[in-house]
Amino acid sequence: MNKPKFYHAGCPVCVTAEKELIAVIGADKIEVIHLGEDKGKIAEAEHYGVKSVPALVTTSGNVLHINFGAGIDDLK
Amino acid sequence: MNKPKFYHAGCPVCVTAEKELIAVIGADKIEVIHLGEDKGKIAEAEHYGVKSVPALVTTSGNVLHINFGAGIDDLK
Repeated sequence: MNKPKFYHAGCPVCVTAEKELIAVIGADKIEVIHLGEDKGKIAEAEHYGVKSVPALVTTSGNVLHINFGAGIDDLK
Repeated sequence: MNKPKFYHAGCPVCVTAEKELIAVIGADKIEVIHLGEDKGKIAEAEHYGVKSVPALVTTSGNVLHINFGAGIDDLK
């Protein structure tokens, strides 16, 4: 993985977190994945250890869960 | 506020989050405040809306609570 991945589901908390993280990190340095629109990526997110969204998976594989938007099971 | 502020309390979750955020954002672009060592800053953190640590307060004033380390009331 060469960029941190930001997983979200379009909830208001997610959108705010996305805007803020892009502002802080830079749009070209973060990959944004909308799990509500791209359900095929849910298994990938779970594989990385994502338990809720929004979450940032760093290049070293740590998962930073941000606030608590929606449980990942609710997206399936 | 000209830099995002990262509040933490030295817990293992906080230390991981701090390392990861510094790696992603850059050490010169983030101010790190250890509320366990600098209890005078707790009121400031509360003023920004920090409810738990670790948390990142962005320059636009949004608070991103990361994981759930420790409730801020436990630090007092």
